[in-house]
Amino acid sequence: MGEINIKMLALELNLSAATVSRALRDSYEISSETKARVIEMAKKLNYEPNPFASSLRQQKSKTIAVIVPAIANNFFSLAINGIEEVARARDYHVLIYQTHENSEIERSFLMRLSSGRVDGILISLASEEVDKRQLKEVSEKLPVVFFDRVHDDIEGVKITTDDYTSAYNAVQHLIENGCKKIGYLMALNSLSTGEKRLQGYLDALKNNGFPYQPDLIITNSGTVEQNYSLVRNFIAEQKPDGILSSIEDLAMPCYYACKDLKLTIPDDLKLISFSNLAHAELLNPSLTTINQPAFEIGVEAAGILFKIFNNRRYAFNETITLKSNLIKRESSMRAE
Amino acid sequence: MGEINIKMLALELNLSAATVSRALRDSYEISSETKARVIEMAKKLNYEPNPFASSLRQQKSKTIAVIVPAIANNFFSLAINGIEEVARARDYHVLIYQTHENSEIERSFLMRLSSGRVDGILISLASEEVDKRQLKEVSEKLPVVFFDRVHDDIEGVKITTDDYTSAYNAVQHLIENGCKKIGYLMALNSLSTGEKRLQGYLDALKNNGFPYQPDLIITNSGTVEQNYSLVRNFIAEQKPDGILSSIEDLAMPCYYACKDLKLTIPDDLKLISFSNLAHAELLNPSLTTINQPAFEIGVEAAGILFKIFNNRRYAFNETITLKSNLIKRESSMRAE
Repeated sequence: MGEINIKMLALELNLSAATVSRALRDSYEISSETKARVIEMAKKLNYEPNPFASSLRQQKSKTIAVIVPAIANNFFSLAINGIEEVARARDYHVLIYQTHENSEIERSFLMRLSSGRVDGILISLASEEVDKRQLKEVSEKLPVVFFDRVHDDIEGVKITTDDYTSAYNAVQHLIENGCKKIGYLMALNSLSTGEKRLQGYLDALKNNGFPYQPDLIITNSGTVEQNYSLVRNFIAEQKPDGILSSIEDLAMPCYYACKDLKLTIPDDLKLISFSNLAHAELLNPSLTTINQPAFEIGVEAAGILFKIFNNRRYAFNETITLKSNLIKRESSMRAE
Repeated sequence: MGEINIKMLALELNLSAATVSRALRDSYEISSETKARVIEMAKKLNYEPNPFASSLRQQKSKTIAVIVPAIANNFFSLAINGIEEVARARDYHVLIYQTHENSEIERSFLMRLSSGRVDGILISLASEEVDKRQLKEVSEKLPVVFFDRVHDDIEGVKITTDDYTSAYNAVQHLIENGCKKIGYLMALNSLSTGEKRLQGYLDALKNNGFPYQPDLIITNSGTVEQNYSLVRNFIAEQKPDGILSSIEDLAMPCYYACKDLKLTIPDDLKLISFSNLAHAELLNPSLTTINQPAFEIGVEAAGILFKIFNNRRYAFNETITLKSNLIKRESSMRAE
């Protein structure tokens, strides 16, 4: 039957080529039933669409953009290194954009990028409100791959880690080492990544017969100073004996707050944090971390972007999940 | 006399406007005597050149590029934050390029940028061999401002810190706290930044009557693993009782090597490092650091770039030096 194209699909479905094309681009003009029919047939006939054919015919920028919340973060800098390694092998340049967790800045980057400055985008979402419509518009113009900080409601290829299981196992480890009152320092709460970590925490407590205590969950509030006060007050008032932090920016304040409150980690408070903090081993005490395979995530995400460029693969909505690793250190140790 | 322009300068010098223009651009076609005459007259008449007038008349990209050796480094990420703050206030975007200390990658970025993708460049040089000719060519096409890692031989505006004095004072502090055999972990050695730090170390030793011992100076050698072996062997063989490290990537291996060699910081070995390591205070023991005013460097560098854009100021070869700060912590403490 040879290479399947849109016309052949349309013929098979008894639809116009334009309708099939719009359905494949998930256009709002097409009903969801028709979309479902088109996608089913596309899969059946092993149709490999080439949504970027037109841009490929034009001159390529040989540049890809990486949009991350922060560069001063070992997870993101390792992921960027992974992306750069893949890009360099293909003689592509990587532009790095930093959103500072600000969705306004993110929107502005996306708007400018969609005008064709780059061939594709790798993005880890800002944790503020996500503009789903804009992301969709951009991803209709050029390939977008999401990594780590993703949103389930946005279609696209996503590379994540096992956030639920990682959080669950971390809490289980704290309970096994004697914790009775475990706090959760929440961030990324508007994102699926954050929801899954929270759910892992909640389920681990529940399955161990611990009651649900909303006062034990706090959410980050912005500046370094604000986060410090928040964490310090939380520890002083709630007196948790264990804490799981969903980001490093909330775990480091625990060290400073414990110093200030004359509490000892791990004797008075055990601490575990996401994710790849550099030199966690050299801290006093060394910090138990949930290490994400950051470099591999970058390699995987960039690899998929280049597959899309080369038209070898195009997934409407696929999620690839890599495994994180709980590295047990002094901060979560059981008292002798 | 009003606004001085090239024609007025030419008239005053009895030269053609083209010659004056070329001399101001430091063209190889013009003799150094003529250049000196032109520059002298330009200064005398308070001439403010506008070398980017033509590009300003064209559409601007409203984008600036920052080229740094590494983003996973608190100094550079703070400097980038400073740059972004200035750029954001002017509605400019900042593109971040990471050279990984590789001058080949640096060259390739510069080549691509010089074609007009951005309105200006802020660069902290890779520590490998610098391509001075290329940098000069680029800076003839669009404004370039250097920060932190600079090269005295390359003309341009430079924002640096007091590297000589900082290194000198750090060594003085080690000597005052009892060190007799102080090692120096060198990096950035092809750059003026590195030369000044080394000279500060050497002069402090000399002025305190310590002999020059070349075996106490080692130079970084690339990968994390190579640096670790290098530092471990150095400590094991030379048995220094004090170390000044010119970069964090050589200081962190000291912690691991001392653990491995069963040496205690600061009792067996006192340690000081450049520069703004995040959470130096939380390390075991906390690390004495020479903190550069990283954010301010970024603000200053970006501010000058925008002044150049606005034609309010243009320096042929100016260096602005900001002060660093020795933050004394446990790692360099005198034994009780």
